[in-house]
Amino acid sequence: MNLILLFEKDFISPERVRLTGRRLEHVAQIHRAQVGDSLRVGLCNREIGTGEIVSLDKNALELKVNFDTSPPSPLPVTLILALPRPRVLGRTLIAATSMGVKEIYLIHSNRVEKSYWHSPVLSEKKLQKSIILGLEQSMDTILPIVKLRNRFRPFVEDELPKIAQNKRKIIAHPTTNTSLISQKPGKTVLIIGPEGGFVPFELAKFAAAGFEKYSLGKRILRVETAVPVLLAKLF
Amino acid sequence: MNLILLFEKDFISPERVRLTGRRLEHVAQIHRAQVGDSLRVGLCNREIGTGEIVSLDKNALELKVNFDTSPPSPLPVTLILALPRPRVLGRTLIAATSMGVKEIYLIHSNRVEKSYWHSPVLSEKKLQKSIILGLEQSMDTILPIVKLRNRFRPFVEDELPKIAQNKRKIIAHPTTNTSLISQKPGKTVLIIGPEGGFVPFELAKFAAAGFEKYSLGKRILRVETAVPVLLAKLF
Repeated sequence: MNLILLFEKDFISPERVRLTGRRLEHVAQIHRAQVGDSLRVGLCNREIGTGEIVSLDKNALELKVNFDTSPPSPLPVTLILALPRPRVLGRTLIAATSMGVKEIYLIHSNRVEKSYWHSPVLSEKKLQKSIILGLEQSMDTILPIVKLRNRFRPFVEDELPKIAQNKRKIIAHPTTNTSLISQKPGKTVLIIGPEGGFVPFELAKFAAAGFEKYSLGKRILRVETAVPVLLAKLF
Repeated sequence: MNLILLFEKDFISPERVRLTGRRLEHVAQIHRAQVGDSLRVGLCNREIGTGEIVSLDKNALELKVNFDTSPPSPLPVTLILALPRPRVLGRTLIAATSMGVKEIYLIHSNRVEKSYWHSPVLSEKKLQKSIILGLEQSMDTILPIVKLRNRFRPFVEDELPKIAQNKRKIIAHPTTNTSLISQKPGKTVLIIGPEGGFVPFELAKFAAAGFEKYSLGKRILRVETAVPVLLAKLF
């Protein structure tokens, strides 16, 4: 937690917040902070700044806050992921959020097990939790938007063309020879497939929508590793 | 498991292996493979190839194996990490291994909690487990070497100069303005600090050893994300 993310409901006066639960525990036990210490804070979807500890006990942490700096720049990318396995999703969202991704679509694909769509990790609350961890890690405040699309064809045929209009269109696919190196940064839509990859029908649909296949080489990476690697190569 | 990693002890004849435990379960339950199916296999520190399933039941999987291909190229990098928190170490080793890192030093630093050095995750067996998962993921067979150095000063003063001789020397440090973009690939030693960063004394020691600071920008990333991002930028 390199930044404590604050929400409107935390405020008890215009310059003062009162925190309990996870954030209190973290400051007390990990930061081992004391009254008078100054911590980095950020207001959700707004500026970042500092919070001076005015009181801290077992029940609550109170900070006098001041905001003066813009959050770090977002990445100009829309990330489209075949829904990962539930236990991988959280880590992938944290990684993507910490790198500055602000728009994420989780889509169905032939090799995504249908049961994944019923996992509790897709609840609003769990998704939000991962996103907040990613923002706190990277000292950002701007919440990414995560959209769930559990039907492949309507998404690719009706929605994707609008999302990708006038943007660089890239699909990560291991078995092609094209390397990313020559690509120039700019507004980008990046698609990453499921374990085992997209099936030919799906790849044809993406090709029809103007997406070009790119490979990172012979090594197949876990999605939580592939996302940061592709973003690092692309921007 | 994109490749089943085999060891000499798995062989019951020159061309046949017998697998139980984790690899049997994975093939039966995740691959849902059957007799006659062909799976990608690799012999530890040797070539990769295919294994045809000749028998498969609750007790064992037998494969007729044939090796014909070199494993993917390693990255010419020595990775030096301030020992991460125990629950992060495994994921970081998997990520580094899957990207082709073959030499990893885990070192002490002022901001590494001493208790981390007593964690069971540092046992030979647990380290090996993460490494094998990374190799299986990226279809590689060459085991990386992980070395533990729980005293900072002897490592930096006596060992590091020899490790880094005639190599590109890079230390990832968030609060510097130098970006990685201009760096050209080649044999490299990459140092990544602990949560909270190296202290000034440590940074001075690395500077004295010829290491230059590089930053990925304003965002501070988790070590399991920073490792793939830095490797992606460097190679």
